[in-house]
Amino acid sequence: MRRKEFEVMDDQETEQFLHEMSFGFLGTWGEDGWPRLTPLNFVFHEGSLYFHGSRAGEKMNQIQSNPKVTFAVAKEYAIIPSYFTDPELACPATAFFKSVLIRGYAEPVSDPAEKASALSAFMRKLQPEGGYNPIDPADPDYAGQLKATAVVRIAIQELSAKYKFGQNMNSTKFEQVTEGLQQRDAGLDAETIALMKAYCPHHQKK
Amino acid sequence: MRRKEFEVMDDQETEQFLHEMSFGFLGTWGEDGWPRLTPLNFVFHEGSLYFHGSRAGEKMNQIQSNPKVTFAVAKEYAIIPSYFTDPELACPATAFFKSVLIRGYAEPVSDPAEKASALSAFMRKLQPEGGYNPIDPADPDYAGQLKATAVVRIAIQELSAKYKFGQNMNSTKFEQVTEGLQQRDAGLDAETIALMKAYCPHHQKK
Repeated sequence: MRRKEFEVMDDQETEQFLHEMSFGFLGTWGEDGWPRLTPLNFVFHEGSLYFHGSRAGEKMNQIQSNPKVTFAVAKEYAIIPSYFTDPELACPATAFFKSVLIRGYAEPVSDPAEKASALSAFMRKLQPEGGYNPIDPADPDYAGQLKATAVVRIAIQELSAKYKFGQNMNSTKFEQVTEGLQQRDAGLDAETIALMKAYCPHHQKK
Repeated sequence: MRRKEFEVMDDQETEQFLHEMSFGFLGTWGEDGWPRLTPLNFVFHEGSLYFHGSRAGEKMNQIQSNPKVTFAVAKEYAIIPSYFTDPELACPATAFFKSVLIRGYAEPVSDPAEKASALSAFMRKLQPEGGYNPIDPADPDYAGQLKATAVVRIAIQELSAKYKFGQNMNSTKFEQVTEGLQQRDAGLDAETIALMKAYCPHHQKK
């Protein structure tokens, strides 16, 4: 987070992004000195981040030995080729993206009601069309499964969002990139232009 | 990697996946006990993984104090809703994905020729259409930029690939998921069916 100009402080927007993104990476501490990274589906629910998994397994052991975890979510919107702004040098090549980094304490959830609430939020997010019975700890068909499934809450200590959409560019380069994206018009280019305009403090400057 | 049935050992396929994916997450060790995760563009080049960045900044300091880093790349292919295989319970809901995890030692590259070689591979990957002068340390337009840019090589100690495409399902559920994906036919569903067939040991079983 060295470059403050990319930081975003809009909570609602961050929450929307976390809702839109189906998976992220959990970073845990490995005793051998190597950080562990695990791709996981997740849900941001009532101010915390939740994921689930098997009760056995390395991830749960790591959380127990060190509950300090990091969760990261990122979406790349566009690769910006160097020739949008420079006909000769490769150096200006870059990428525009959104990312959210969360630091917190991972805590296994034991209360069946909280488990059910978190898993229900998880399902509403990832399977919004429904097609399953409500997750109810009193339902005997769910009770055993709820017991067997580990649900982990990350109590968020720090959340930082970084959205990089050319905020550091001068107006000439900003226009060149916008034009380049307009002409290329592939993938998320149109959405990228809209986000550039939404975030760029330099956009209004001459 | 508790569940061995999802592991993939095909080097060529893994290399192809790393070439296809433009970004991943670098995991480094934070002195406060929280792992640091940074989304980064990268290239797999001559058996190592390379990324670049500013010479200043937190990331470079962390690498210097602990060169043990993890790099993770993942792509989600399909959310598999529970009702593909169960009309009542939410439990079977899952996601199919490819992920590659790399553990290695991060080493800042000082040799200008290796820097230029890695950055050239980086550009060939992310800007295959060209549109820039070759990156040559002898070119005075590049010499200063090459000096100012930090290039980091991750010397790979361990690479593991996990591709989850229903390898653990019995043939009934496998067929139900295949049919569900065929009917939904959204996003990468068709590609997901092809990968299920390619990876599933149970597919031929009754």
